[in-house]
Amino acid sequence: MQPTHPLTRGAGEPLSAQLAQRLAARILDRLLPAGARLPSVRQCAALHGVSPATVVAAYDQLLAQGLVEARPQRGFFVRDLAQNAPNPSVKRSSHAPEKEATSSRLQQPINATALIRGMFAPAGAQPQPGMGIFPPDWLAAPFVAAAVRKVAASRQWPATALQYGDPRGDAGLRAVLAQRLVALGLPATPDRILTTVGATHALDIVSRTLLKPGDAVMVEEPGWAVEFARLDALGMRILPVPRGPQGPNLDVMARYCAEHAPRLYVSVSVLHNPTGGSLTPAAAHRVLQLAQQHDFHVLEDDTYSHLAPEHATRMSVLDGLQRTVYVSGFAKILAPSWRVGYLAAPAALVERLLDTKLLATLTTPSLLEQALALCIEQGQLRRHTERLRQRLDAARARSVQLAQQAGCRFAAEPAGLFGWIDTGVDTDALALRLLDEGYLLAPGSLFHARGGASPLMRINFATTQEAEFWRRLHVHLAAMRG
Amino acid sequence: MQPTHPLTRGAGEPLSAQLAQRLAARILDRLLPAGARLPSVRQCAALHGVSPATVVAAYDQLLAQGLVEARPQRGFFVRDLAQNAPNPSVKRSSHAPEKEATSSRLQQPINATALIRGMFAPAGAQPQPGMGIFPPDWLAAPFVAAAVRKVAASRQWPATALQYGDPRGDAGLRAVLAQRLVALGLPATPDRILTTVGATHALDIVSRTLLKPGDAVMVEEPGWAVEFARLDALGMRILPVPRGPQGPNLDVMARYCAEHAPRLYVSVSVLHNPTGGSLTPAAAHRVLQLAQQHDFHVLEDDTYSHLAPEHATRMSVLDGLQRTVYVSGFAKILAPSWRVGYLAAPAALVERLLDTKLLATLTTPSLLEQALALCIEQGQLRRHTERLRQRLDAARARSVQLAQQAGCRFAAEPAGLFGWIDTGVDTDALALRLLDEGYLLAPGSLFHARGGASPLMRINFATTQEAEFWRRLHVHLAAMRG
Repeated sequence: MQPTHPLTRGAGEPLSAQLAQRLAARILDRLLPAGARLPSVRQCAALHGVSPATVVAAYDQLLAQGLVEARPQRGFFVRDLAQNAPNPSVKRSSHAPEKEATSSRLQQPINATALIRGMFAPAGAQPQPGMGIFPPDWLAAPFVAAAVRKVAASRQWPATALQYGDPRGDAGLRAVLAQRLVALGLPATPDRILTTVGATHALDIVSRTLLKPGDAVMVEEPGWAVEFARLDALGMRILPVPRGPQGPNLDVMARYCAEHAPRLYVSVSVLHNPTGGSLTPAAAHRVLQLAQQHDFHVLEDDTYSHLAPEHATRMSVLDGLQRTVYVSGFAKILAPSWRVGYLAAPAALVERLLDTKLLATLTTPSLLEQALALCIEQGQLRRHTERLRQRLDAARARSVQLAQQAGCRFAAEPAGLFGWIDTGVDTDALALRLLDEGYLLAPGSLFHARGGASPLMRINFATTQEAEFWRRLHVHLAAMRG
Repeated sequence: MQPTHPLTRGAGEPLSAQLAQRLAARILDRLLPAGARLPSVRQCAALHGVSPATVVAAYDQLLAQGLVEARPQRGFFVRDLAQNAPNPSVKRSSHAPEKEATSSRLQQPINATALIRGMFAPAGAQPQPGMGIFPPDWLAAPFVAAAVRKVAASRQWPATALQYGDPRGDAGLRAVLAQRLVALGLPATPDRILTTVGATHALDIVSRTLLKPGDAVMVEEPGWAVEFARLDALGMRILPVPRGPQGPNLDVMARYCAEHAPRLYVSVSVLHNPTGGSLTPAAAHRVLQLAQQHDFHVLEDDTYSHLAPEHATRMSVLDGLQRTVYVSGFAKILAPSWRVGYLAAPAALVERLLDTKLLATLTTPSLLEQALALCIEQGQLRRHTERLRQRLDAARARSVQLAQQAGCRFAAEPAGLFGWIDTGVDTDALALRLLDEGYLLAPGSLFHARGGASPLMRINFATTQEAEFWRRLHVHLAAMRG
């Protein structure tokens, strides 16, 4: 995302048209998602340094273009631009406050998409506080491209490239992954591992295999928006489980089990996104007890595995991969665009998961799997990961200090890549303000199954090193707290 | 797959144990799928040159291992080894003969998987008549690996590799794909194109976006087993449309439209798999008329695009990508393990399809997309494709002659990669016999929504050049007809 330039007075185009164009571009890019409320005329005028009349004229142009709609007494809202409703089950629901009810949301898929699209900022744009990965310069390491060139130059490669490849994934990579998992304490053999197109694909395969539409599934809240959106798009009933610093709220889980017979529990047990918390051994044990009593599977998303200490508690280790499926990937520490992830599953499930992989993508690209195996075997990945963790530790310390100086409080003990900050204001509104300064935030509403205003937001420690961001944040927080 | 060696008399192990082990390996590899009937004791004894008592002893061992079950008066059948039923909607159904009824099958997913697994023969194994792609030596060309090395050596690449990449796919590749589509007559711009993990992923994304569980979808029959299996696993009601040499049976389609209000029609219009037929312009026009009258979308799978003449009729061209979604890929002509495919969609659908792509795999590997773009831009792919087509034309002529000499009749005019052969015998039984000779066949039952014995089978012209295969086939055909 480009930082926003001030509107240009005396240019050929009136200020109102310039403002309308800028807002229109954000709506079309879905950085302002369907349903989002535009700032009030007064707020917008103050933000852009123009008169209220200019803002009214700009909003009128957006109305005429069909991009926004006016709701009496409430203001201007971004229209849903999709011509067909995506799915009857994800139509806009009236936000009736309902406790623990299963979700049927429009907000998340689109907000999630907006956040994800923000991640795909073109190279050279400034790293964003709302990003979910390290900035490119943190990941830069010559061994990555070298491994690709080596594989593509090998005599064996053409023969493997010219067939679909092993449906489970490259055998060499699965062998080194099995070694890694055994080191973590999982009883993983190469034939219980399937490679995937990133961890996202693994989560998708597991959901599609273990659940059928209408099934109840427990998901941690706050949690990663894409997980909510995917399960919702698959037609599942989402049961949000409050996630605390030690793990999930077990009383809520027990009640769900009694009332909804959920089939699956999805958890980022280690360095949880967005809070950074990790499951305690006792919590892991009690979750597994519940899983056995109520016969559900556990999907353990260990995406942040490489940033965590090896002794971190993983349910798959306690359980011995009996009713747990373990998922991880490399987007967080290597090359996000390689899209290499994997899962390790109970022996009884592997074949069914493999069938789903075949139906979804047939196989996965062997070249990148072979290159990744090289990076792991030669120890380069381990050394790279150690350097990244050290650099992240330093960055985290600095971000925490800057955040506190800016008047932010951490809602959870800072750890891993993300900080979970309590700002005391509506972070959706805060995010709209910061967007005007060229910063993409990740407001708390993105991490809840049902959206709604939240004073929390997630920051990426690696992309919040500059004092200028925190100064601008502080200015807006002060204005909002009034 | 390795050719099968004769059982060894006088070895340490009794013949019955050797036979049991061989059959057990096939069951575990699912080359003998759940529900498959083992040959009769007499047949099996004749096939393997052993006494009926040896076969009885071998079958007893399989029974004891829980791999097969005996059904009184009917014989021995492979058991379903999955411990949990994959999905209530794909439980084994009693094969009640029902016309046009929507399907709920167990047979196809597993048979399809068996066929696909056969495709993943390790390098060096003999190419198989049932394969769906060219053998590796046909595809071998140095420019493929060279393109990868060039991309991985470029200065720009690390920057793109270290971010998730454009969610629509590499912009350079989408630009050259748009040029290709415009040359075919489609009004495709780069922003209406999404790259995918092979054409399979594109078909999956479109189904998941346009359909919800329980929706009716029309699919050509015979047709590609993976398509039936995927739609079934997604919980759709499959309406099989008989596909003739000119195109689909329009009367059946009209009746389905009146009775079931299908949401989608899935068609391989050009060089149809398995028959090789291509849609006539008149049939394409009438399908699109029906689609407009009854408001369904058309998913045009142009997987065999590069093997077809450019003037072949594509519904997406007639329709101008209004209610058609066009899908294609490169597994058939380049490097199957690259898994680069794409779709081009109506403007109103692109964003929804992109959301599904994000939820399924986030993005796709940019390295391989950039390498593919290079191969296309530099004209190497075009020249390679021309050479392949010429070689295929010669191979097709030879296979047709050999097939006819072996007593086979072509049920459809030979064209493209596949021949659709009428053997006059049950091709499931024929496939089991040929498996014993080391040949994997693609029996007709794999191409039907409801399975069942069929005298038809698909052959790959590129992998049926050796007279020996046809001689062995002839021997078994004679024995079965005998």
